Amino acid sequence: MTRFAFTLQATDGRARTGVIDTPRGQIRTPAFMPVGTAATVKAMMPESVAATGADILLGNTYHLMLRPGAERIDRLGGLHRFMNWDKPILTDSGGFQVMSLADLRKLTETGVTFRSHIDGSKHELTPERSMEIQRLLGSDIVMAFDECPSLPAEESRVAESMRLSMRWAQRSRDAFGDRPGHALFGIQQGGVTPELREESAEKLKEIGFDGYAVGGLAVGEGQEAMFGVLDYAPGQLPADKPRYLMGVGKPDDILGAVKRGIDMMDCVLPSRSGRTGQAWTRRGQVNIKNARHADDPRPLDEHCTCPACRNYSRAYLHHVMRAGEMISGMLLTWHNLHYYQELMADIRGAIAAGEFAAFETEFHAQRAEGDIPPL
Amino acid sequence: MTRFAFTLQATDGRARTGVIDTPRGQIRTPAFMPVGTAATVKAMMPESVAATGADILLGNTYHLMLRPGAERIDRLGGLHRFMNWDKPILTDSGGFQVMSLADLRKLTETGVTFRSHIDGSKHELTPERSMEIQRLLGSDIVMAFDECPSLPAEESRVAESMRLSMRWAQRSRDAFGDRPGHALFGIQQGGVTPELREESAEKLKEIGFDGYAVGGLAVGEGQEAMFGVLDYAPGQLPADKPRYLMGVGKPDDILGAVKRGIDMMDCVLPSRSGRTGQAWTRRGQVNIKNARHADDPRPLDEHCTCPACRNYSRAYLHHVMRAGEMISGMLLTWHNLHYYQELMADIRGAIAAGEFAAFETEFHAQRAEGDIPPL
Repeated sequence: MTRFAFTLQATDGRARTGVIDTPRGQIRTPAFMPVGTAATVKAMMPESVAATGADILLGNTYHLMLRPGAERIDRLGGLHRFMNWDKPILTDSGGFQVMSLADLRKLTETGVTFRSHIDGSKHELTPERSMEIQRLLGSDIVMAFDECPSLPAEESRVAESMRLSMRWAQRSRDAFGDRPGHALFGIQQGGVTPELREESAEKLKEIGFDGYAVGGLAVGEGQEAMFGVLDYAPGQLPADKPRYLMGVGKPDDILGAVKRGIDMMDCVLPSRSGRTGQAWTRRGQVNIKNARHADDPRPLDEHCTCPACRNYSRAYLHHVMRAGEMISGMLLTWHNLHYYQELMADIRGAIAAGEFAAFETEFHAQRAEGDIPPL
Repeated sequence: MTRFAFTLQATDGRARTGVIDTPRGQIRTPAFMPVGTAATVKAMMPESVAATGADILLGNTYHLMLRPGAERIDRLGGLHRFMNWDKPILTDSGGFQVMSLADLRKLTETGVTFRSHIDGSKHELTPERSMEIQRLLGSDIVMAFDECPSLPAEESRVAESMRLSMRWAQRSRDAFGDRPGHALFGIQQGGVTPELREESAEKLKEIGFDGYAVGGLAVGEGQEAMFGVLDYAPGQLPADKPRYLMGVGKPDDILGAVKRGIDMMDCVLPSRSGRTGQAWTRRGQVNIKNARHADDPRPLDEHCTCPACRNYSRAYLHHVMRAGEMISGMLLTWHNLHYYQELMADIRGAIAAGEFAAFETEFHAQRAEGDIPPL
């Protein structure tokens, strides 16, 4: 049986490329993980997600525990079988979303009690229960249960929260136990304060994890503050384990994060944007609902090989989005996920070739051109 | 260039099977045509529609003329290219929908003026304009412009309306002209009155069309009244041309129509039902939202080879439908369209084998069993 293992293949500056081996297949890094919140990447068939080049999906513990329920998914053979995705799945711990979505939540040393935002039913999440749920789901990469404040926040609040998360990290590690082929990742907290980040990293390394996330970012602090933390935080984490930046981001966020030593990322942006008519191309963002596309026979991106670009005009995408037809979300989500995965493949190639800086320059130059002018 | 031609291959009682040749491919009859109202079969990629076995789609003149507009679709290369469907397309005339959907409509001998239900803009549909729009769309099978009352209606109203439709049928024929490879179908009216149906059929045959629709049914009269008309109406139309029953129907409607000599049908039912959680199987209708499916690991139909049945449990379909996820509509629509096309293939096989009566008995016996019992 393949064990969980990370192999670094090349570095270029602080940017890294490598491979994570898992029993369910390889994850090429830097990796972008599409989000399949409720056991589906919205508007996509899972075989289409795989066709975009995704090696791994993210599932949300909070959503799945409430509906359809972790025990139910376990009885049905686990999340992979349930949602027809046989490649790796990373699940978050539920910690972030219980604090942002649930009703009447109450935080104690033990964990969080809350009411479901769906039906008002009462639930509890603790490090132990989070580990149990993620095991029931059959997650390949399990995240430690943590808590984090929105930024900006008082440093004392950030420190207190980080220390609670570190105690929970230890309890997560203890509860996870020894599960060959499955990985447990710790999550660094500490907001934008280097000393708190360092304290958190030291504690996590002491506990020992299979990978390390930079947590508590992408929560309102802006790109500059995020890059500020990423200038030092990845270096505080072990070089021989994957580093995962949670909830990021836009294409330029991804490039900046990779440049600073990040190996894995996830974000709802490509799928959520797709459903509202926002497309990402190498020339930046395109709002397909804009009237200027109504008569445009050209594809969204003439260099793109996704079905939306191969088979449809901007005029068609404009029409179906305006008409509220489901195929608009299906095609634009596919395009956006394809664009993201192609970006990751290009990034991996550039790092392997030692040409990441040139790639970054070209990336920004193409975006500076802006979208193609109207005919 | 292939011309439009209908070849009858076998009959069994009044049921018929054959092939319609068109420059865009063959249509095997009896044929079920999925409805692609606004240049998309809702929740489906066109290649998936083709994979279900559909030989032809229906497009709606009324919707397309309002948005994105027939002239625009023409500039963009026609409807086939616009929506990425290269097989045949039949378009309705707009007559039925302008009377059921448009605002402030006014009917005269000339045609209908109305306001768009989308943006209130003012439009006119006449036989001549309907022919022009259907030509701009690039329709392979064009329907004559007609008008029909909802049933039940006064016989005098039905007669008056039928005679107007016959005058419009002549104007449609004149305006259509000679377009090799494209077909024009006339539409028989006359409600549930045999003499009016006969008068309409005679008039249409006198004008001469490439195919004939039985119109004015599926408008509220019920299955018994519909079958009552179908007991004689197809026999009033030429045997050597395709006969099309518009807007029908449920699987048992289809069987009853084929039995009475119908060759083509269309209906939004499989796609619309799919989006609301209704699935059709050989054992009847299944409401996947029902709580009894929440833990059911079995497929919707173990004999079905569609992706929804091959790859997902009832529990999953239940979950994603309850959660409002787009994949629920995508999978159930695919299943329903697959079921309908498989039904048509089975019907064609049974007619060719001279076993239609036995097929009909088995069809009703399977449905009488009802859905599989809970585990």
